[in-house]
Amino acid sequence: MPKIVDHAARREEIAEALWRVVRRDGIRAASVRTIAAEAGWSAGAVRYYFPDQDGLLGFAMDLVTRRVSARIDALEPKGTATAIVLRYLEEVLPLDAERRAEFDIWMAFMAQAQAETGAASLREHVDTVHNDLRTLCERLLLSLAEEGLLKAGLDVRREAERLHALLDGLALHATIQPERTTPARLRQLMRAHVETLMA
Amino acid sequence: MPKIVDHAARREEIAEALWRVVRRDGIRAASVRTIAAEAGWSAGAVRYYFPDQDGLLGFAMDLVTRRVSARIDALEPKGTATAIVLRYLEEVLPLDAERRAEFDIWMAFMAQAQAETGAASLREHVDTVHNDLRTLCERLLLSLAEEGLLKAGLDVRREAERLHALLDGLALHATIQPERTTPARLRQLMRAHVETLMA
Repeated sequence: MPKIVDHAARREEIAEALWRVVRRDGIRAASVRTIAAEAGWSAGAVRYYFPDQDGLLGFAMDLVTRRVSARIDALEPKGTATAIVLRYLEEVLPLDAERRAEFDIWMAFMAQAQAETGAASLREHVDTVHNDLRTLCERLLLSLAEEGLLKAGLDVRREAERLHALLDGLALHATIQPERTTPARLRQLMRAHVETLMA
Repeated sequence: MPKIVDHAARREEIAEALWRVVRRDGIRAASVRTIAAEAGWSAGAVRYYFPDQDGLLGFAMDLVTRRVSARIDALEPKGTATAIVLRYLEEVLPLDAERRAEFDIWMAFMAQAQAETGAASLREHVDTVHNDLRTLCERLLLSLAEEGLLKAGLDVRREAERLHALLDGLALHATIQPERTTPARLRQLMRAHVETLMA
């Protein structure tokens, strides 16, 4: 009888191995070889899930998306409207080692998409992730608008783009100068920004 | 008599060759080999100016810094205070092919600094460039404050960090989705931001 492979379970196992490698050594250390070693599998078995570096980064990016979505879906924030919006935004800011690893994967994924002139699927995937974050920003602002908490006359679409750019810019700055752009500073700057949008 | 080499002139020549390669094929195509071919030199002659990829990126980053500084020094902007501030900020936004190439070099340079765990000099260089841009933001806001044009009660240091993050975030978004984050949109968003800071 042929061996039945539980692909969902194996995919989960390999995602965990990938995550351990990225957390410990950074996304640049992640390769079919290092992840196979971490999982205790052969390189061939890993290649079933991602044949090359493009595939690896796509797999890693999917993992990040699932992680962020799960955290956001699980949120039941309480408090003021500002506090609730900030609580959501915190899930996509590099405020701890886990979220820093997620942002590193996003940066590496984006760089790879730019590098590969042929990899249209990679660029589409980058587009999707980028659009999803802008949509999150837009939804948060719309929910404030619906409750009449947004400053009158604001262009929500434009404000969502500005908020989105600020989020990515701050995350980038936390990567460049972690000793200056600390988690506390990220929270402060983000709160100051959201407060300027409130009625 | 030994041949006298005019290093300043050769450095300029190699900078021009580097720039042509980056403009035409992107920073990822730039290597000692491709730049030597472009300049019509031997790889050995190019290695005098940068021995390896770290050196190449450092050289390219210096070139970008000199280009941006020269443009900023040459500015004699007229008009409203907002228009003047925006005119300065435009010099560091990827609004045309030249400035997009400059931003690409900055991103590649930063990624390389993160990758090389040992290259402390590269990380210091990244710090300097990063600090210089934040300082520019701070000076622009201080000049508005001195003329009494800044909204009362603003924390200039914090606003400089927010403006700086927005600049880098928008530049990043123009790289990810140039068809959405167009030069016109970049200008609009930047103007909207500066206007929120004005009295």
